[in-house]
Amino acid sequence: MGRKVIITCALVGSATRKNQNPSTPYSPKELAEAAHLAYKAGAAMVHVHAIEDDGTNSTRVERIKEGHAAIKDKTPELIVNLTSALGMGATPEQRLAQIIEIKPEMASLNMATMNFAGVNRKTGEVIVDYTFENQLNMVADFAKTMKEVGTKPELEVYSTAGIDNYYFLSASGYFTDPVNFNFVWGVCGGASFRPATFVGMASSLPPGANFSTCGVGNEEWPAITQAILCGGHVRVGLEDNVRMPNCELAKGNYELVENAVRIIEALGCETATPDEARVIFGINKKKL
Amino acid sequence: MGRKVIITCALVGSATRKNQNPSTPYSPKELAEAAHLAYKAGAAMVHVHAIEDDGTNSTRVERIKEGHAAIKDKTPELIVNLTSALGMGATPEQRLAQIIEIKPEMASLNMATMNFAGVNRKTGEVIVDYTFENQLNMVADFAKTMKEVGTKPELEVYSTAGIDNYYFLSASGYFTDPVNFNFVWGVCGGASFRPATFVGMASSLPPGANFSTCGVGNEEWPAITQAILCGGHVRVGLEDNVRMPNCELAKGNYELVENAVRIIEALGCETATPDEARVIFGINKKKL
Amino acid sequence: MGRKVIITCALVGSATRKNQNPSTPYSPKELAEAAHLAYKAGAAMVHVHAIEDDGTNSTRVERIKEGHAAIKDKTPELIVNLTSALGMGATPEQRLAQIIEIKPEMASLNMATMNFAGVNRKTGEVIVDYTFENQLNMVADFAKTMKEVGTKPELEVYSTAGIDNYYFLSASGYFTDPVNFNFVWGVCGGASFRPATFVGMASSLPPGANFSTCGVGNEEWPAITQAILCGGHVRVGLEDNVRMPNCELAKGNYELVENAVRIIEALGCETATPDEARVIFGINKKKL
Amino acid sequence: MGRKVIITCALVGSATRKNQNPSTPYSPKELAEAAHLAYKAGAAMVHVHAIEDDGTNSTRVERIKEGHAAIKDKTPELIVNLTSALGMGATPEQRLAQIIEIKPEMASLNMATMNFAGVNRKTGEVIVDYTFENQLNMVADFAKTMKEVGTKPELEVYSTAGIDNYYFLSASGYFTDPVNFNFVWGVCGGASFRPATFVGMASSLPPGANFSTCGVGNEEWPAITQAILCGGHVRVGLEDNVRMPNCELAKGNYELVENAVRIIEALGCETATPDEARVIFGINKKKL
Repeated sequence: MGRKVIITCALVGSATRKNQNPSTPYSPKELAEAAHLAYKAGAAMVHVHAIEDDGTNSTRVERIKEGHAAIKDKTPELIVNLTSALGMGATPEQRLAQIIEIKPEMASLNMATMNFAGVNRKTGEVIVDYTFENQLNMVADFAKTMKEVGTKPELEVYSTAGIDNYYFLSASGYFTDPVNFNFVWGVCGGASFRPATFVGMASSLPPGANFSTCGVGNEEWPAITQAILCGGHVRVGLEDNVRMPNCELAKGNYELVENAVRIIEALGCETATPDEARVIFGINKKKL
Repeated sequence: MGRKVIITCALVGSATRKNQNPSTPYSPKELAEAAHLAYKAGAAMVHVHAIEDDGTNSTRVERIKEGHAAIKDKTPELIVNLTSALGMGATPEQRLAQIIEIKPEMASLNMATMNFAGVNRKTGEVIVDYTFENQLNMVADFAKTMKEVGTKPELEVYSTAGIDNYYFLSASGYFTDPVNFNFVWGVCGGASFRPATFVGMASSLPPGANFSTCGVGNEEWPAITQAILCGGHVRVGLEDNVRMPNCELAKGNYELVENAVRIIEALGCETATPDEARVIFGINKKKL
Repeated sequence: MGRKVIITCALVGSATRKNQNPSTPYSPKELAEAAHLAYKAGAAMVHVHAIEDDGTNSTRVERIKEGHAAIKDKTPELIVNLTSALGMGATPEQRLAQIIEIKPEMASLNMATMNFAGVNRKTGEVIVDYTFENQLNMVADFAKTMKEVGTKPELEVYSTAGIDNYYFLSASGYFTDPVNFNFVWGVCGGASFRPATFVGMASSLPPGANFSTCGVGNEEWPAITQAILCGGHVRVGLEDNVRMPNCELAKGNYELVENAVRIIEALGCETATPDEARVIFGINKKKL
Repeated sequence: MGRKVIITCALVGSATRKNQNPSTPYSPKELAEAAHLAYKAGAAMVHVHAIEDDGTNSTRVERIKEGHAAIKDKTPELIVNLTSALGMGATPEQRLAQIIEIKPEMASLNMATMNFAGVNRKTGEVIVDYTFENQLNMVADFAKTMKEVGTKPELEVYSTAGIDNYYFLSASGYFTDPVNFNFVWGVCGGASFRPATFVGMASSLPPGANFSTCGVGNEEWPAITQAILCGGHVRVGLEDNVRMPNCELAKGNYELVENAVRIIEALGCETATPDEARVIFGINKKKL
């Protein structure tokens, strides 16, 4: 029997909108529906941002909470992984308050300050020249709070520096084993996917750590495939990429999950159920 | 439009028999049929050994020639890649004579002497403890002859040593660009597939070289997938592996090709036609 | 004859002071003396920050200019490489104004926004939790200006992300070949030195690029040695490290250079003269 | 205090002669003298082949025994590491008999069959086109015997294939922890040294394994330096290389050891004493 590979589906991000792919979910109801279809297709976890009905990025705790609840109502088995980034301009207090309030099973934890630019790679134009600030004391504080409220952090790293920040901060005792990383490829400001870069990054992980990966745009497919080959897990979804490998728009998040399943099975692996994912990631399932 | 990936199908090897997979082709007619189905499934090239009707490995030029002719008769488009190894016990003269006689478009050229053992990995038993001898002067002589008869060599390497033998021998002038390597993984006596080992080996190639890969048994799928991610080409087939990723017996060579196509397309690439493969590998198509 | 390796000596940084190593140069005269001894020991280039006599970090153009002039007066052959970082709190305008005014042969150009923390690695304490901001448009603007004033940039990268920022920005045309990178290891906020990380980073460089490397504290020696093995150049100096390999305080910058020379020669390479370095780095020597 | 690095000095090999370097030791007395000077310079172990007075390679047990005894008489502290290869044409029985008779503390154990050619790299001429045969059952038998007589094997690998042969054979139980590998670079038939190849090979080792390295000719210095950076140990000596980094002939084995010491110390490491080496390599010191 093949190794179990966990699929996370990132339903919508702070920068994906219906004009890019009309199946992008905004409302709690749309999120719940998209999550359910992703689960049916093979996802064990969904990663969620909150979007207002008019398509603006939301930092409102109430909106985030409603999305979270709607997903859990419709598909109680699923792991819901919230973000502690929230999008450009969110304050550290906002980023943390919603985690404290909702106490999700898992939440992203960005490990490094970095450029996070919106660009046109064809023209070389910088559309948004953003500094994504994650100061070390702030990261430590986020980790400490997540530990207190029982939320397992997913450590987002865009380059090896994020792993080294973990090594420095691990002395704090705020991180508990197993440590779960997510390598993000193709953000302008982070590293681009290349097999040698991926293998080098994976070789830098602490023993026993899990890792997942995601890639922006057409880096999604090679990046998740490399992760499977290297013993890791995968994330796909409209937050990262709105197209299928043949460049057609995905009919929905579920179709991206289906392609991940295709790769997993073609490599002799199997998709993990949410409960199998909880065991691997060290998540203590919450009472509902 | 995605990168073109060349699929080679190794229809039968000196050690695959019908008792392992009943769809294994022996006779020229079976080879032609298997080659045709592989071509229909997406293969641009077939690699062929000759087997007698009773299942014994054949070094008879006539038998090899009949298999080659039968394939070309039924599917003239296909590239036929013969072996210059021929199996245990073949003499250098035998290995070369059939190439001179048949002048195939392509033929394997083993680049290093090595252990080539038949083993039971579960029990640790060595069933056949063979020395696969490819002395340097012999390799040079094979390369020289292939150049003379217009057969493009495919350089078989089972470990980095084979690439370094190429570097040494390239001074001879018997190799012409583009140089085409094939990395073989999982033979007992060669390297086992690991992403870091593959990436390291690919980084050792001369600039402009092509590479393909194949893997024995269940190393077939991760190995070919890594090759696609690294910009290379792939080989599947009953010579290397008789099972699908879910461990069921393949219904035929074509079903292994179908899984390779699935991976290629899931990664946004496309399968190369035989003529596209000829351009990439630098094969001058032979008159029929 | 061995490959020519360029030694840069980083005489003093924005955070090295006489209380850490009493030989740290502050005044123009001390800089000139330290530069001269470094040159005699084998350095082809010095990298310089300006420090006031009282040990405070200086952003005053006049102070920087005096240091630059003092060095060139005493050792006209040396390449002087100024910083375009200037230390915490410097504005983009300040960082650029001095380059425009002094037009050094070379100057550092930081390629990514990052954490740049002052920490105690033993206790895990964050002493200074600084965001080192290098927005993409700012980096492009710096590159454009350096091109205009004839200053060759040295691209400082602390993780693979910096190289990918280069790839994005290279479309601008503000960078001219050869492109010269410097890998910085061991800053808290950047990657730590490991051979696999270094090799992976070097494999990400554009063809034809040069690279040098430096490492903080005791990462200096393995990092520069790996660079020599990988075909690159080296930087040592009190800015990065105040101690010899045996943990004793260096008697001066020159002693660190001497150890770099020892490694270079033990590996069969040779130190490059300033003029040889100009050819390698593509610096057009300025009239004095 | 720095990491302890073990220096092995390979005093003379089956192919090094006085016409290449007049300080090459042949007689037991010369071996003992060379070993002593190497020890004084920093070596913890010597690796020895036997050469007759007329410069022919020796497979005589008596000659090997005399060399071994002479070294131990003069420098009882030293670890003596014999070869189980003995040079071209030695039979498996000869190769093993001397180990059984002498029971050295350590002996080389070659892990793979390979080309082992004497060549002129400048002209491309193959002077000796040798097949170095190490069949799997033979390797297992050597390991079993060494375990019985209390000789710790040093596993010689010239390419990743040798490590994978170890993985296969380890099921036999004939190898005991810690397992000690030696990577050999630059033999024509094995891999050439490149940092990426080395790092890839080191990443393939089983957990807890030690490794040392040596390199032929001018690959000696970069190879041993890479080993130090990667946490391994080193071997130098006239068997591998007769010249100093500046291309002058070494005055003796000791001078090669001195250069290894120079690199070790320039990197902040220290040389291991023979007893420290015994602890690291898991050698149970023999009574004298």
